Amino acid sequence: MDTQPLYQRLADYYRRAIQSGALAPAQRMPSVRTMVRTHHVSLTTALQVCRRLEDDGLVEARPRSGYFVRPPAGPRLAPVPDPDIARPIDTAQYEGIHDRVSRFVTLCESEPCSANFALAAAPPASYPHAALRQSMMRALRMHSEQMVGRAPPQGHPQFRALLARRALDCGINAGADELLVTHGCIEALNLALRAVARPGDTIAVESPTYFGLLQIIESLGMRALEIPTSPQRGISIEALELALRTQPGIRAVVVVPNLQNPLGCIMADEDKQRLLRLCHAQQIALIEDDTYGALADDGPGLAIKHWDRHGDVIYCASLHKTLAPAMRLGWTLGGRWHDRMAMFKFAQSRPNEPMAQIAVADYMATKAYDRHLARLRHQLRQQRLYVADAVARHFPAGTRLAQPPGGMLLWLELPEGTPGMTVFEEALRAGIRVAPGAMFSNSARYDHFLRLSCTEPVGAATDAAVRRLGEIVSACGK
Amino acid sequence: MDTQPLYQRLADYYRRAIQSGALAPAQRMPSVRTMVRTHHVSLTTALQVCRRLEDDGLVEARPRSGYFVRPPAGPRLAPVPDPDIARPIDTAQYEGIHDRVSRFVTLCESEPCSANFALAAAPPASYPHAALRQSMMRALRMHSEQMVGRAPPQGHPQFRALLARRALDCGINAGADELLVTHGCIEALNLALRAVARPGDTIAVESPTYFGLLQIIESLGMRALEIPTSPQRGISIEALELALRTQPGIRAVVVVPNLQNPLGCIMADEDKQRLLRLCHAQQIALIEDDTYGALADDGPGLAIKHWDRHGDVIYCASLHKTLAPAMRLGWTLGGRWHDRMAMFKFAQSRPNEPMAQIAVADYMATKAYDRHLARLRHQLRQQRLYVADAVARHFPAGTRLAQPPGGMLLWLELPEGTPGMTVFEEALRAGIRVAPGAMFSNSARYDHFLRLSCTEPVGAATDAAVRRLGEIVSACGK
Repeated sequence: MDTQPLYQRLADYYRRAIQSGALAPAQRMPSVRTMVRTHHVSLTTALQVCRRLEDDGLVEARPRSGYFVRPPAGPRLAPVPDPDIARPIDTAQYEGIHDRVSRFVTLCESEPCSANFALAAAPPASYPHAALRQSMMRALRMHSEQMVGRAPPQGHPQFRALLARRALDCGINAGADELLVTHGCIEALNLALRAVARPGDTIAVESPTYFGLLQIIESLGMRALEIPTSPQRGISIEALELALRTQPGIRAVVVVPNLQNPLGCIMADEDKQRLLRLCHAQQIALIEDDTYGALADDGPGLAIKHWDRHGDVIYCASLHKTLAPAMRLGWTLGGRWHDRMAMFKFAQSRPNEPMAQIAVADYMATKAYDRHLARLRHQLRQQRLYVADAVARHFPAGTRLAQPPGGMLLWLELPEGTPGMTVFEEALRAGIRVAPGAMFSNSARYDHFLRLSCTEPVGAATDAAVRRLGEIVSACGK
Repeated sequence: MDTQPLYQRLADYYRRAIQSGALAPAQRMPSVRTMVRTHHVSLTTALQVCRRLEDDGLVEARPRSGYFVRPPAGPRLAPVPDPDIARPIDTAQYEGIHDRVSRFVTLCESEPCSANFALAAAPPASYPHAALRQSMMRALRMHSEQMVGRAPPQGHPQFRALLARRALDCGINAGADELLVTHGCIEALNLALRAVARPGDTIAVESPTYFGLLQIIESLGMRALEIPTSPQRGISIEALELALRTQPGIRAVVVVPNLQNPLGCIMADEDKQRLLRLCHAQQIALIEDDTYGALADDGPGLAIKHWDRHGDVIYCASLHKTLAPAMRLGWTLGGRWHDRMAMFKFAQSRPNEPMAQIAVADYMATKAYDRHLARLRHQLRQQRLYVADAVARHFPAGTRLAQPPGGMLLWLELPEGTPGMTVFEEALRAGIRVAPGAMFSNSARYDHFLRLSCTEPVGAATDAAVRRLGEIVSACGK
C-alpha cells in the first residue's frame, strides 16, 4: 500500500520520465492543466508536483512559458579555458585551408551518415518554407516582369527598406540606401576584404574562426593573423592591440561578436565598444559578421555597428542560418567603404536578382517572421542543451565544453592528447559526422577540439550517437 | 486610265510602302496568300509582284520564311576599317575605367531619355516573362523545399543537364558535371581570371572590348593588354602572337568570338581554331565569353570550346541577353581549371540558389524557348537594319559602320576629329542615349566612335532620333 502523498507519487512519475530521457532537457513540461486532465488530480496537486520538481532542480519555470526540463545536475563539464594572451601570435604562413576543407568534405561524403553534428544549418523542416512559397507566389503574380527587366542596383528597394527596419532590432539605425544586397554573407565578406585590403595584406581574425573566412582570406591572397579568443568573452582586445603594435600591414579585423562560430560566445557590450575604439584609433577596418546574432536565446544582441559614428564598421549579415539556407540572401552596410564595395559588387557579380528579395521582404514584414525566429531559437536551445548534457554524461573526464548563450554550436576541448582528426575519421565510420577543430585555424592549436552542431531534433538516437562518440573519444585518447 | 499591268501597279504600291517606311527594312512582307486575299488577284499575279520587287532590290527571299524588305539601296556607309596590326600595342597603364563608366552612368541618369541606344539588353517585352512565371510557379509548387535546404554545389543538376544539352547547339559536347553555375557571365569571368592569373599579371583582350571586362580586370589588380581587333573578323591572331613574343606575363586571352561587344563580329571557324592552337602552344588560358552567340541572325555559331581537346578553353555564358536580364544565371565550363574555379566560386559566393535554376531548366526544355530565340533574333535583326539604314541616311559623310551578322549592336566610326564624348553629352541633352567609344578601351583610340544598341521597337520616332543624332554628329565635327 502506497503511503506517499499523491503529489509526491506524481512527482516521482515525472522524475523517472526525465531521468529516462522521455522528457528531454530543455523540453517543455506538460502544462498544469494537462496534468489535471491526465491524472484526474486537483489544480492544487498539479501545482505541488511542479514546485516539488522545481525544488529538486529537475525543472525550471520560465515566465509566461511554463516549466521546462533542466539539464541533469549530474556530471558537469568544466568550461573551455581562455587562451593565453601572452602566447606569441603566429602570422599564418600556412596555406592550404582549401585542401583541408576539401579533404573534410570528401571524407564526409564517403560514408553514410546517421547522425550529423557537422552541418551548421538547421534541417529544412526548421524553416518556414510553406510561408516563403506563398510570398514567392505573390511576388510572381504581382512583379514577374522584374525577372526580365533590369535588376535594381544595390538590391531591391523594398528588401533594403525592410532590412533597414529589421536592423533596428540589433541597434543599427541606417538608411536603406546605405545597404548593399549580396549573394549571402560570404559575398559581403569578400567585398569587404577586397575594399579594405590588397593581396599580401594581413587580416586579423578570431582564433578559432570559421573556416569559410580563412578560405576567403587565402583565396584573396591575404594573410590571416589569428588573435587569441576567449570561448566566454570573444576576441582578446589586448592581444589585438599587441598585434597592431608589433605586426606590420594589418588592414582589418573580422569578428563575429554575437554567437561566434565555432565558439558560440557573445562579446560584452563594453568589449564591443573597446574594440571599435581601438579600430578607429588605429584606422583599421572592423568587419562585423552577424550571421548568427538573431539566434541568441534572448534574441539579437547589439551589433558593434550600433556604436559606429565614423563608418569604421562594415556590417555583414545574411538569412542563411535564420530563414532560408538555399536562398543566398545577404547584405552589408559598408560604412565609409560603401562606394568601393558597390563598385566591387558590380565588377564581381552585378546586382542580385529581384524576385527572391521581393518575396522575402514580403515575408519578413509579417509577425510570422518573429514567431518563426522565436520558435527556431527555442528549438536550437533545446537541442543544444540536450547534446551538451549527453556530452557531459558520455564523454571521458577531462573533456571541456563551452556553453554558449544561443545558436546551434558547441565547442569541445577533448582530453589532452586526443587527436581530433582521428576522432572525426573514426566517428565517420560509425555514421557520425562532426567538425574537427583543425578546420577552424591555420595552426595546429585546435587539433584536439571538436565543433558539434545541434541542428537535428533530439531523442534517444541523439543520446546513442553522443554515447558512441564518447566511446570513440575515449578510445582515441588512449 | 492606267495602262500598266496589274502586277506592276501592285508592285508600285508596295514600293511606296517600303520607301515611306510603312514596311521597314528587314520586316517580313505580307505573304503571297495575303496579297491574293487583300487585292483579289490571282496567285500568279501575287508571285509576279514579289519577283518584281526582288528584281528591283527592294525585297529578298529567305528559304521557308517568305520575302523580307531589304535595306534601301540609297546611301551606303563604308565599313569600319581593320586596325593596323603593326601599330605598337600599348599595355594598359591607364587605370580608371570604373571612374569613366561611373561618370557615364551618372551623366545618363541626369537627363530624361526618349531614345535609348546605350543599353545592351532588349526591353522587358522582348522576353517571355509570362512563360517564365509559369515555370517558376510550377517549380515552387513542386520543389519549394529547395529554398530552405542546401543549394546543390556547382548548380542544380537539372539546370546543368539542360545547359549541357543546349550547349550542343554551339558544338560543345560536355557532361553536366563539367559545368559550374554562376551569378551571370560576369561572375564566371571573374572566376576564370582569378583561376588563371594573379594580381599584376597581364590579360590580353580584344580592342575595343566590353567595358565590364576592363572593370573586372582592373578590380582584380590585373593589367589589360588590348590586341587590335577587326570589326569584320575579330581579334588579330598575328597581333596576339606578336604580343606573346614581346610582352612578359600574359596569362590569358579573353575573346567574344561570336557577336563581339561592341563590334558585333563573328570570327571565322578557321580563325577560332588558329587562336586555340596558339593558346595551347603558348600554354595560356583562352577565356571565351559567349553571352551573345545565340543571337546571331543564322542561329548560334560554333564555340571555340568545340575544338578544345586539352581543356585550354574556359567557356563562359549566361541568359542575361537571351532570356531573362534580371535573373543573373550564368555558367562556365572551366576545362583544366574547373576545380580551381569551383574553389573560388565556393569562397566567393557559394552555390547559386536553386529555384530559379529549376524554373529556367523547365522552360528551356521546351520548344517555346527555341521559338522565343527565333523571334528575338528576327526582332533584333529588323531593328538593327532599320537603325543602320537610318544612320546611312542621316549621318554625315565619312561616317563608317560595322554591319554585324546578328545581335543588337552597331559600331560606328565618326568622321575624323569628331569627339565621341561631346556627341554623347549633346545627345543626352536631346534625350538620346548612346555609348561613347571611349568606354570600350583604356586608350583614347575609340574616342571618335559610338556604339548604338538597337533594342527598342523601331518606327518614325527611331528615325527622328537617328536624324537628330546625325545633326549632333555633324555639328560636333565642325
